[in-house]
Amino acid sequence: MADSFQPSIKATTYSVAQIAEHLKARVIGDESQMISAVNSLPEAQTGELSFLSDKRLLPQLKATQAGAVLVTEKMAEHCPVTAIVVDNPYAAYARAAGLLYPQRFHIPGIHPSAIVDDKASIDITAWIGPGAVVEADAVIEADAQIGPNCVIGKNVRIGKRTTLVASVTINYDCELGERNLVHPGTVIGSDGFGQANDNGKWVKIPQLGRVIIGDDVEIGANTAIDRGAIKDTIIEDGVRLDNLIQIAHNVRIGAHSVIAGQTGISGSTHIGKQCMLGGTVALAGHLTIADNVMIAGRSEVRQSIEKPGAYGSGTPLEPMKKWLKSSARFKQLDEMSKRISELEKKLAQLDSPS
Amino acid sequence: MADSFQPSIKATTYSVAQIAEHLKARVIGDESQMISAVNSLPEAQTGELSFLSDKRLLPQLKATQAGAVLVTEKMAEHCPVTAIVVDNPYAAYARAAGLLYPQRFHIPGIHPSAIVDDKASIDITAWIGPGAVVEADAVIEADAQIGPNCVIGKNVRIGKRTTLVASVTINYDCELGERNLVHPGTVIGSDGFGQANDNGKWVKIPQLGRVIIGDDVEIGANTAIDRGAIKDTIIEDGVRLDNLIQIAHNVRIGAHSVIAGQTGISGSTHIGKQCMLGGTVALAGHLTIADNVMIAGRSEVRQSIEKPGAYGSGTPLEPMKKWLKSSARFKQLDEMSKRISELEKKLAQLDSPS
Amino acid sequence: MADSFQPSIKATTYSVAQIAEHLKARVIGDESQMISAVNSLPEAQTGELSFLSDKRLLPQLKATQAGAVLVTEKMAEHCPVTAIVVDNPYAAYARAAGLLYPQRFHIPGIHPSAIVDDKASIDITAWIGPGAVVEADAVIEADAQIGPNCVIGKNVRIGKRTTLVASVTINYDCELGERNLVHPGTVIGSDGFGQANDNGKWVKIPQLGRVIIGDDVEIGANTAIDRGAIKDTIIEDGVRLDNLIQIAHNVRIGAHSVIAGQTGISGSTHIGKQCMLGGTVALAGHLTIADNVMIAGRSEVRQSIEKPGAYGSGTPLEPMKKWLKSSARFKQLDEMSKRISELEKKLAQLDSPS
Repeated sequence: MADSFQPSIKATTYSVAQIAEHLKARVIGDESQMISAVNSLPEAQTGELSFLSDKRLLPQLKATQAGAVLVTEKMAEHCPVTAIVVDNPYAAYARAAGLLYPQRFHIPGIHPSAIVDDKASIDITAWIGPGAVVEADAVIEADAQIGPNCVIGKNVRIGKRTTLVASVTINYDCELGERNLVHPGTVIGSDGFGQANDNGKWVKIPQLGRVIIGDDVEIGANTAIDRGAIKDTIIEDGVRLDNLIQIAHNVRIGAHSVIAGQTGISGSTHIGKQCMLGGTVALAGHLTIADNVMIAGRSEVRQSIEKPGAYGSGTPLEPMKKWLKSSARFKQLDEMSKRISELEKKLAQLDSPS
Repeated sequence: MADSFQPSIKATTYSVAQIAEHLKARVIGDESQMISAVNSLPEAQTGELSFLSDKRLLPQLKATQAGAVLVTEKMAEHCPVTAIVVDNPYAAYARAAGLLYPQRFHIPGIHPSAIVDDKASIDITAWIGPGAVVEADAVIEADAQIGPNCVIGKNVRIGKRTTLVASVTINYDCELGERNLVHPGTVIGSDGFGQANDNGKWVKIPQLGRVIIGDDVEIGANTAIDRGAIKDTIIEDGVRLDNLIQIAHNVRIGAHSVIAGQTGISGSTHIGKQCMLGGTVALAGHLTIADNVMIAGRSEVRQSIEKPGAYGSGTPLEPMKKWLKSSARFKQLDEMSKRISELEKKLAQLDSPS
Repeated sequence: MADSFQPSIKATTYSVAQIAEHLKARVIGDESQMISAVNSLPEAQTGELSFLSDKRLLPQLKATQAGAVLVTEKMAEHCPVTAIVVDNPYAAYARAAGLLYPQRFHIPGIHPSAIVDDKASIDITAWIGPGAVVEADAVIEADAQIGPNCVIGKNVRIGKRTTLVASVTINYDCELGERNLVHPGTVIGSDGFGQANDNGKWVKIPQLGRVIIGDDVEIGANTAIDRGAIKDTIIEDGVRLDNLIQIAHNVRIGAHSVIAGQTGISGSTHIGKQCMLGGTVALAGHLTIADNVMIAGRSEVRQSIEKPGAYGSGTPLEPMKKWLKSSARFKQLDEMSKRISELEKKLAQLDSPS
């Protein structure tokens, strides 16, 4: 299907020397070579940049036909083509690809089909795309990009160079910092799930806080971040959230933490800094997770975690019949444990008959 | 970041006496005091209302500087400031906050950028926001609020005072009752997942039912509720659904049940009344869950539940290395159980050697 | 509530003979009868078509008042009304319902409120609905239906007769084949979650691939499909995806596989052909799942699956107190296993005292 594909994104061309300078890296080989694309080690050709971040792929490095490869000092000797020597080839690849394929900013202005309230403040360098709605008292700062059919509520602030790709909804009073990137379908500032039970019926608790998002945050598609009940929900600088994540009211996510898809964080739970949460993790409410905690995908977290380190929960996949047996036995675990204790007691009596 | 924040929502001011009257509550202390905000016990100041719903926070009550506090009869003696005595302080707080921060209704009318079919019927007191689309034969009743970029399909009914915040999509023929509140990104009336296998290929089964939603229902952000296959999917009065929930075709949710984020309910499962389901619970299809069932977050439900009560499933979080061991042993559970039985048999033979 | 319901969808009327001809089926009974609706066995009346796909519902067949019923040869003798004899009654029902309730196509044209870039190419038979945005170089093929408030990015291709119901967002460069059906709120082509860690901070990896979707694919509501990092994310022909699914970058889903709601597939995992994944399944990244694999709902998959067959994981629901015991014992599994081994050793010594 892809035969005639003409991507709308094309790389800017840089020489190996220019890329190396951008990365503050040393070059072994031809510095003058021009690079105009990135590619994987097995597929890269002349004029394309690749990287080796996993030693196990060393055979791919040895056979590569890439124009240049980002490698560590240690691996450089195995590189059959021009080597750009860096400490962290994966991060260097990210930076080089960011240089070659920079985010495109639209020509500033408000699309005639956008619906912008007279009392909204739009920086002259910002772009408001087709069908976008910007309500009163919203502030859209310099170079911000509000994509097609986004909705920006009353009194919202969108910081400099922040991009909402398309169909993003930001409810009233929320604040997004600078250089954020928010993918389509994401909702920020929906009401927290505050419900008080009154004789079997639920009374809604008005959600009066906001969502406050720092700088350099990326948020995936169809994620939902609820506003706080009284105080704010807070996403600190440099956080990375994937798709379909649920962030409940009054959650706080520490700086430079990363959370994979479909993970859910219940109300008032605080995640530390530089944590890594896998996908479909579920966290109960009112927990505190320390800095530098790593939680395996699909884990359930019902208690606070005080120490940095790696954690997990769950059971392994098995062929259906075997799983049904394991699963049935799980219910007998307490009984099994008691039977073992009983056996130990009896055996001890046999061992030392008085 | 929040220093200069001027929230767009401000409380209406009421005297303690007026709030107490609204709650049918007794006041101990200064009834004439004016209240113009709510706050937590540790942070509340003069002029602010707080509440004590958890005995463990009694020290916070004793130290509070709130203007007035909602407390039970039993706790009133410990309240250092004006006490508003109620049976259920959390529900009373919900009601008082609802009084102080009432839902704001827009000035009635159809925004010039809204696209309303000539054959739609819009009550003169309803509001249709910017960029909203209302298709033919849709009925929008009195005081209904259709927010920016919502899509209301053909022949949909939106009941009185029901609010769709923004970017909500309601497909054709669905009915929402009165006083509903639906948060952004939610989809109601998408096709149920009906697929018939025909020699390895899937044939779509037309989904001919609707979604019918009662009165006083709240639905969170980015939730999806599928229309029925032949009959309807039904959400009864007073139900509360959180964000990113999946409701499959022909599900029925009983009145005043509450379901937390990311829970998924498979086709034709019926949930009773006044149930409480935690977040990320998964329910198989064609189940019946009794009234007054509570299911812990992240549980999996593969069988019907006939008795009211609390249920759960899942395994606890452990440090990674320990978890990997527990997880590996899970596969051996059936074998372990058999080894215990074997030991018991042998020991019984040793015990009573014939 | 439903008493006065006038559905906007009405069936086209066909005779039993016409339906049987469409299905290449044999009729036992009155071929001239007119059918103008479908219904379940217990509720169907004269003029309505039903089906029996599950032997356990035989009593319903015996009591039915339907106009005609789709049955297998074996069940035909028990049918008290006109029988349409087919090999696979459920698939036959799907086809017959598709005949009676065909997808409605809009009158071709671009709604005056749609915002279509001059450089987009819209087939004269396609429909672009109210508030939809179509960006430059997009190609909308014959009979494609772009519903209200959809966003079609730059250089996107939407194949013939493909329908985006409403509020669907397709990012730049992605390709959808023919006869696809995409439900509201779904996002296709959001950036993959590529982040490189550089001394505790995350550097975004530009996502340069696309999403390529084959023909005859159905995708539910609020699902997210990320574009590839370098190569493309690929959904093959005939795949069926339910609501709120997460498809990460560089995933490949084999032809005619079906995936239920809220399942998440991590980056670079390849699912085979004709697989069936239940709801809320979580798959780790870089796995390969063979063809014809069935995975039970809520399973976690951390390793590749090489053999066709049925698999599952997870633990059963229990009353809360019992579950808490089972769950606590889970942590002791490794210790329990060792205690059993110790007991076996001791017993062996007792058995054969040297």
